[in-house]
Amino acid sequence: MFNVQVLGISAAAPAMGRGVSSQVVTYNDRNYLVDCGEGTQIQLTKFKVKVMRIDAIFISHLHGDHVFGLPGLLSSMSMDGRTTSLYLFAPASLKQVLNVILQQTNSYLSYPLEFVALEDFQPGTSILITDSFQVKSIPLLHRIFCRGFRFEEINKKPKFDFYKAKALEIPNQYFHLLKQGNTISLDNGRIIHPDEVLLPPDSAKSYCYCSDTAFYPAVVPHIENCELLYHEATFGDDLKSRARQTAHSTAREAATIAQKAKVKRLIMGHFSARYKDLSVLEKEAQSVFSESSVAEEGKIYQV
Amino acid sequence: MFNVQVLGISAAAPAMGRGVSSQVVTYNDRNYLVDCGEGTQIQLTKFKVKVMRIDAIFISHLHGDHVFGLPGLLSSMSMDGRTTSLYLFAPASLKQVLNVILQQTNSYLSYPLEFVALEDFQPGTSILITDSFQVKSIPLLHRIFCRGFRFEEINKKPKFDFYKAKALEIPNQYFHLLKQGNTISLDNGRIIHPDEVLLPPDSAKSYCYCSDTAFYPAVVPHIENCELLYHEATFGDDLKSRARQTAHSTAREAATIAQKAKVKRLIMGHFSARYKDLSVLEKEAQSVFSESSVAEEGKIYQV
Repeated sequence: MFNVQVLGISAAAPAMGRGVSSQVVTYNDRNYLVDCGEGTQIQLTKFKVKVMRIDAIFISHLHGDHVFGLPGLLSSMSMDGRTTSLYLFAPASLKQVLNVILQQTNSYLSYPLEFVALEDFQPGTSILITDSFQVKSIPLLHRIFCRGFRFEEINKKPKFDFYKAKALEIPNQYFHLLKQGNTISLDNGRIIHPDEVLLPPDSAKSYCYCSDTAFYPAVVPHIENCELLYHEATFGDDLKSRARQTAHSTAREAATIAQKAKVKRLIMGHFSARYKDLSVLEKEAQSVFSESSVAEEGKIYQV
Repeated sequence: MFNVQVLGISAAAPAMGRGVSSQVVTYNDRNYLVDCGEGTQIQLTKFKVKVMRIDAIFISHLHGDHVFGLPGLLSSMSMDGRTTSLYLFAPASLKQVLNVILQQTNSYLSYPLEFVALEDFQPGTSILITDSFQVKSIPLLHRIFCRGFRFEEINKKPKFDFYKAKALEIPNQYFHLLKQGNTISLDNGRIIHPDEVLLPPDSAKSYCYCSDTAFYPAVVPHIENCELLYHEATFGDDLKSRARQTAHSTAREAATIAQKAKVKRLIMGHFSARYKDLSVLEKEAQSVFSESSVAEEGKIYQV
């Protein structure tokens, strides 16, 4: 299981029923929250995501619409009695902000908060790694320090060909050894090499999150060939100059990045409240890259 | 016009569609926001309160469920281009918290934020006063420094008795002088004293906000005879011991305070998420004070 649930698609502030930036990336039994604008805990409840099952939080940058929901969420986890560590990957100065808030609002946390500063890692290197999954940071171009995130499978295991093994009349008790890549010797002296019963692994899939950023082609090598790209598209063609001023992207620019990076699909978010009807932005993006769409809040996207 | 719109009735965190503490007190053309839990700007939009028309904000205490919505709201006002001063009455240490947040999240405010520390005022003295209205702070008993607020009319003007003036054949051009309390001399030499055409003023009305607090009879002189009291009622009789531990009140205790203070009506809020059905709490309160009810989010209460 590798999917993404977008919780909010509004830039700057909640507007027209749209929440601000936050999403949940799920890989097997792990849940990662990416950005945490005000009201994220309300959106999590609305979309039935269990707050206690979040293992780590990634914060791209310290503009309020990406982080003002964090103190409430951390407090709620504490009031619910969380005891397992929570990893927080964020710009370094968030630590000071959180310390002041938690201290002055008398918010003692019931669990260890393990803070990891994004500045400590070169973009493109792993900031979180397990035996089957990793997260790398992506350089973005915004008004303040900002990083995107690439979530990707690693060490994909070859698949065991059960029917082939049965055809070769290999007893079941040897299957797990073969799956692990061992050569086995059967009682009758036959030698079985794992290659005989293993199929090539599925290709490793990846999801990239890029918000907030100006049009920035330097991002391309960091997001290349991913199955799913989320890219901000704050404005349409009509407000391209405003996008320049504020270091944001237009929908057309998001699609251009997606095309250059040869991603499979693009979903867009972080829309200015000026756009009530988002189909205009979707069409502008699709004119460049057909597999573009406006992200829907609550919808689960398979990577 | 003197009314109250409750935006959130949930304690601790948003739950079951209920927002956390915040309400809007409106007196004529002035709007005062009282407490500002996470998601307050979402509730304001939902209930069609214009964010830009808020003149001052009162924060009772620094627990997150009363204040985590403030950074987002202040930022939104700025992004919307507010230029008029905003008064913020709050515990002193909120200033430091806000400074750190606004600075680190790069949130420049487009308007002057005039901070007034509640610690600088003895409870019962005016913290805000106009020629017709004032706000006093109320001492509450909680785990950290906490104040309630009494909003009250002052200097109620006598009412002009138009029909009496007409019966006395006083020409219209003298009405405004009489309304202002002047004695006038008509062309025909008749002397008219203002008492002849003025009726006693309506009684000054007041609204009191008490959240969060343990059962605290010392509050009674501060809220006596108000038309409308909002009092927290976090728990029911079943969790009275939990109310003790956490310095909160039960619905029965809220009603007892209302009765002792001879208020006209009580509305209750700040409910624990343990109570899905609030009618139990309402009944417990009504058994002590019949004019008790559970506050409804969005409903406008006339004072």
